[in-house]
Amino acid sequence: MRQLLPLNYIHSTGVFKRASRKMNTNSSNMMALAPNTSKKRETVCIFGTGDFGRALGHKMIQCGYHVVYGSRSTQISNLVPKDAEVLSHAEAAQKAAIVIIAIQRQHYNFLTPLAEILRGKVVVDISNNLKLNQYPESNAEYLAQLLPGARVVKAFNTVSAWALQSGALDASRQVFVCGDDTEAKEMVMNIVRALGLTPLDQGSLLAAQEIENYPLQLFPMWKFPIFLSLGLTAFFFFYCLALDVIYTYIYEHNNFSFFIAMTIPNRICPVVALILLGLVYLPGVLAAIIQLYRGTKYRRFPDWLDKWMLCRKQLGLIALAFASLHAVFTLASPLRSFVKWRNAKPIISQALNNKTEPLDTTNAWLSDSYLALGIIGFFFFVLVGITSLPSVSNSVNWREFRFVQSKLGYLTLILCTAHTLVYGGKWFLSPTAYKWYLPNIYMLSLVVPCAVLVVKFVLIFPCVDKPLTQIRQGWERNPKSSEQSNYIINKSAV
Amino acid sequence: MRQLLPLNYIHSTGVFKRASRKMNTNSSNMMALAPNTSKKRETVCIFGTGDFGRALGHKMIQCGYHVVYGSRSTQISNLVPKDAEVLSHAEAAQKAAIVIIAIQRQHYNFLTPLAEILRGKVVVDISNNLKLNQYPESNAEYLAQLLPGARVVKAFNTVSAWALQSGALDASRQVFVCGDDTEAKEMVMNIVRALGLTPLDQGSLLAAQEIENYPLQLFPMWKFPIFLSLGLTAFFFFYCLALDVIYTYIYEHNNFSFFIAMTIPNRICPVVALILLGLVYLPGVLAAIIQLYRGTKYRRFPDWLDKWMLCRKQLGLIALAFASLHAVFTLASPLRSFVKWRNAKPIISQALNNKTEPLDTTNAWLSDSYLALGIIGFFFFVLVGITSLPSVSNSVNWREFRFVQSKLGYLTLILCTAHTLVYGGKWFLSPTAYKWYLPNIYMLSLVVPCAVLVVKFVLIFPCVDKPLTQIRQGWERNPKSSEQSNYIINKSAV
Amino acid sequence: MRQLLPLNYIHSTGVFKRASRKMNTNSSNMMALAPNTSKKRETVCIFGTGDFGRALGHKMIQCGYHVVYGSRSTQISNLVPKDAEVLSHAEAAQKAAIVIIAIQRQHYNFLTPLAEILRGKVVVDISNNLKLNQYPESNAEYLAQLLPGARVVKAFNTVSAWALQSGALDASRQVFVCGDDTEAKEMVMNIVRALGLTPLDQGSLLAAQEIENYPLQLFPMWKFPIFLSLGLTAFFFFYCLALDVIYTYIYEHNNFSFFIAMTIPNRICPVVALILLGLVYLPGVLAAIIQLYRGTKYRRFPDWLDKWMLCRKQLGLIALAFASLHAVFTLASPLRSFVKWRNAKPIISQALNNKTEPLDTTNAWLSDSYLALGIIGFFFFVLVGITSLPSVSNSVNWREFRFVQSKLGYLTLILCTAHTLVYGGKWFLSPTAYKWYLPNIYMLSLVVPCAVLVVKFVLIFPCVDKPLTQIRQGWERNPKSSEQSNYIINKSAV
Repeated sequence: MRQLLPLNYIHSTGVFKRASRKMNTNSSNMMALAPNTSKKRETVCIFGTGDFGRALGHKMIQCGYHVVYGSRSTQISNLVPKDAEVLSHAEAAQKAAIVIIAIQRQHYNFLTPLAEILRGKVVVDISNNLKLNQYPESNAEYLAQLLPGARVVKAFNTVSAWALQSGALDASRQVFVCGDDTEAKEMVMNIVRALGLTPLDQGSLLAAQEIENYPLQLFPMWKFPIFLSLGLTAFFFFYCLALDVIYTYIYEHNNFSFFIAMTIPNRICPVVALILLGLVYLPGVLAAIIQLYRGTKYRRFPDWLDKWMLCRKQLGLIALAFASLHAVFTLASPLRSFVKWRNAKPIISQALNNKTEPLDTTNAWLSDSYLALGIIGFFFFVLVGITSLPSVSNSVNWREFRFVQSKLGYLTLILCTAHTLVYGGKWFLSPTAYKWYLPNIYMLSLVVPCAVLVVKFVLIFPCVDKPLTQIRQGWERNPKSSEQSNYIINKSAV
Repeated sequence: MRQLLPLNYIHSTGVFKRASRKMNTNSSNMMALAPNTSKKRETVCIFGTGDFGRALGHKMIQCGYHVVYGSRSTQISNLVPKDAEVLSHAEAAQKAAIVIIAIQRQHYNFLTPLAEILRGKVVVDISNNLKLNQYPESNAEYLAQLLPGARVVKAFNTVSAWALQSGALDASRQVFVCGDDTEAKEMVMNIVRALGLTPLDQGSLLAAQEIENYPLQLFPMWKFPIFLSLGLTAFFFFYCLALDVIYTYIYEHNNFSFFIAMTIPNRICPVVALILLGLVYLPGVLAAIIQLYRGTKYRRFPDWLDKWMLCRKQLGLIALAFASLHAVFTLASPLRSFVKWRNAKPIISQALNNKTEPLDTTNAWLSDSYLALGIIGFFFFVLVGITSLPSVSNSVNWREFRFVQSKLGYLTLILCTAHTLVYGGKWFLSPTAYKWYLPNIYMLSLVVPCAVLVVKFVLIFPCVDKPLTQIRQGWERNPKSSEQSNYIINKSAV
Repeated sequence: MRQLLPLNYIHSTGVFKRASRKMNTNSSNMMALAPNTSKKRETVCIFGTGDFGRALGHKMIQCGYHVVYGSRSTQISNLVPKDAEVLSHAEAAQKAAIVIIAIQRQHYNFLTPLAEILRGKVVVDISNNLKLNQYPESNAEYLAQLLPGARVVKAFNTVSAWALQSGALDASRQVFVCGDDTEAKEMVMNIVRALGLTPLDQGSLLAAQEIENYPLQLFPMWKFPIFLSLGLTAFFFFYCLALDVIYTYIYEHNNFSFFIAMTIPNRICPVVALILLGLVYLPGVLAAIIQLYRGTKYRRFPDWLDKWMLCRKQLGLIALAFASLHAVFTLASPLRSFVKWRNAKPIISQALNNKTEPLDTTNAWLSDSYLALGIIGFFFFVLVGITSLPSVSNSVNWREFRFVQSKLGYLTLILCTAHTLVYGGKWFLSPTAYKWYLPNIYMLSLVVPCAVLVVKFVLIFPCVDKPLTQIRQGWERNPKSSEQSNYIINKSAV
């Protein structure tokens, strides 16, 4: 459940006097109640004097509405905002065309006797549940069943009392609104706008279930990518543990158990990052192959492909997180006591053998190249990540967004794959790299990105690209939909 | 004062022809003046042909309004936008229902003779001051006193002429509006919307003072956290100077004065970061203790605690800044000439003594663990920081925001505290670590976070957590406010 | 062209059932079509049943509009949203006051016979082109010529079918609207608002050309800064190649060709970053000099200076990108095989010569100072960069924005210049630093920033600053524009 504002923030006026930037600039702080406004907005009735009912009423009074509370007891006026009336439910409802129900669903049945009074009125359901899909029908639909004549609108459930008071800058300004009566919905949306929030019409009351589920969700789009990356991490952890710690312990009698802290994480991170980055671009090439095979874009992709395409952004950002960890782990490696010891060994042996080894230019080339490729690849990766920030992606047009996400994204994939290939370098063919006949994990990480790059390379050949472009522009379409134009091309091309 | 657009941007049309993205896409650039629009919006009068008056008039003409300037001299039409009329103040005011006063407060008294003409009209005050609370009453209230019959509305003062011309993408689109007359306010808010800006109703004219102070503020919420961190930095600087430079100079006769440049900053940064991070979570546990003690959430916290809770975001971001500096200082340390010299010493001594020391596995474990803990702690810290970006926090719901700020925040605190503990390692009990019987500063940094973590650990025990949750859900409330539901739980739990 | 939603996303309902956060929360997913809404909005006619026409119709039905499609064939109802009527063009147009033309420009001539039916109706042009300025006049103006009696409004062309369906969170919510008839424009803007999008009035139909060009632009403001930085990079690459690789090869017979991978990029990056950072602040001081010389701010700056000032943000962000690359390249240098070899040499020689060199305190001071200056300079640079994020710059006021961009920006410039000066250190006067009598490139990089800092230092002297401030406050103005106040001061001061 939402953990919002302590009630004392709402009914006390103390918070309005304290110096605070948020409060200063956007909030009720700046708003004195306006008892002497010459022109008032309409009267709104609120059933329930709980925290949210009071916060909403307070805000509405500040914005010029006349607020009447409907309450079982009319004695609680010290908690209720000044300038608001407190009446019985029936009396309060009769005074307004809009009635906001700020009470919990389990008490809705007390409204049944009021059904006649609420007939024709706009009744706003603002309730939330404690669990996803807690009841068979949404609270708003249940309310509509209880009050057959009322024009029920769902709204405000994603807004917190805290956001109403503090100016809503930290939380979202969006208010989802749905309802079967367009005029009633428009009246509620006008209130939403008057309070400085942004209404989003979500259609009929059938949408109420989803609107009520929204505040209970916890990163639903991130679940699959996070579980996938954790699964990959666990697999590669045990793979590395076997090859780097156990193998070394058995065959070389070295206790490298401390590899668990830095060495193995720094092997897993780049591998998972590269695989996830490959998986971001794999559904795009798969979709292209399917479209080429079918010769049309007017048939749905398989479900798993659709789902996969919808979580590409999340996959990419998790890949970026792993790549960042890899970067920091690598940059921190000269600080490690093990690395200092390992670097000292050849120096001491040179000193003891009384000779200075010349610079190995090939090694210098290899080490500098893979570092440079990695750094530049990471740089472009971060650039693509920055354009995923909502405010940045909002300020570019579609062509620019596609350029960054597709062109720069592929460039990142190429650079990171090359980084890994050069890192592998001459070890690919060396038998000593295959402990227990198993490949090193960076070799495993190359499978997906290399496959994507090879297929993508084939797809950009003109003989393949031309029919694909035509399919995506709808030119292979059936004659019925002949008016469709080239407005819409397949997004999977991104 | 605002440093805005040079006037030539406003009265010349040159800027409208130049290729510029911002201008191309969002600005008057794209807008040709529309002399032949078949349906005009209403007429608006602007008093004053200064920079802002002209910029506003220009924009309004582009959006279809008919603009009449009121001016002392009607000869200055070359600066005023084409298609605008320039008349005397009295004549201009008579032509419109809305009069925008684009002149400075010190000249407002010339309006007194016009009071009768302005009776009943919507008079918009757009002025700013040069200093916070420069006058006893706000400019808008002063204007309302001068013109008793006018319906004064405060608006547009946070918008710059530059923003009006260039499309307002860089600066805020929000226009604070306040006034005692709701209808007049609504008329002004419609103009604001027509200009592509977002009006925010701030209540009655009493709010004008705060609206006028807003553009003069300089990070008011950041002041206390910045001074606190600067104070801590100064204290720890002299503490380190004494222990690392002066002590060494006196007792070991080493001149380590160059420690001031890198070593001491890199000791101060993590210490200040960890203390500030602890201070972010301390008010939350204090509030929980207070609520448990009082047995209710319906009493206000002490003022200092409220203020402290309101600046937690700023404290956390400053802690992140210090942590970032620590990370870069640490990663850069292998480049230091001193570190190279220090690392070379044991190697040379091994070579001279003709022996190769084996790897100290315990040291390797300790060094790798504290590095890994620090890196992962920093990673989560950055993650929490990214969700503080307004556009990111706007796109998550409350449950997600809390998850990141509370769960991931505590994880960060635990990891960073563990990083420091492991860094200290075996030195805690070593007497050589206590120069002049003073503890090393990383030990001082552990006090606050360890205290927070211990109290938090106690608070999550069921026997403590259950009554606290009940209090926060209002279940220990007095019977009067019995309708309040579980909408609102204490935010201090975050 | 826009690469948007595959058609199957639009006409199939499959996507509405799949679990996806974006879809769940903001999209038509949540919206059931509402056949039984008791109050409908007005009827809207859409010509064309192509992808965008269907997506728009679907969304409008969800928001309560009654949609009538005009189509050549009335048989394609399986692709068209349920609840929409499909009629002939003439019949459909007669049913609505607003007709949206969702067909391509090359087919517009079929509308000529319908001119009489469309007389007086609001006709919305939503088309885009494939190339910038593809036709002499905009599509909307062409449409207005074809239908002389219609009230043509340009809108929706920047919105994608994908954005309409998926809730438009990733792409911009802004809808540019223009047209000669204010009432018609207002009707279209109301539809835009009802769909949850933000209309931006761009003036008369003359603006249509720019609105149509907008989705085809690819970072127009970034072009000059990117080409400039690439040019500088290329120049310095060959400069370094000559001095570091070719000179060394000829005179010292060392093959340092691998410098191309890491050493030379890490010399170029800081140099380009510092020059670009200097170029960000150079136009400001040039503008100040011009204003001082002219004694007025009421004359336009030369064109090149205006253009330069408009791309300062882009120059600064590219400078930050180069500075970041420099930071990572530098931090990664201890990993390089060449650096390890070079660091080992003096150690081995000390060991062979059987002596341990004492610490060179001067060197330690120099190395620590330039590292610390660089790190702190980079820290402030990143801070200034973060405030350039749209959502961050939107949440600060003008004074705060200026403080960060101007004060912190100059601090960054001073720190980075000092970093370079200390890095150069004692080499400036050493003849061995001048291979082929050419200065090292870090010396070249100091020219612009030092010039800017010297001029800025002169400009803040009171005897220069006072007249400049007066000029910028308009106090040296000619008597005609005497009412202008100090609202507007020159932005070049930033």
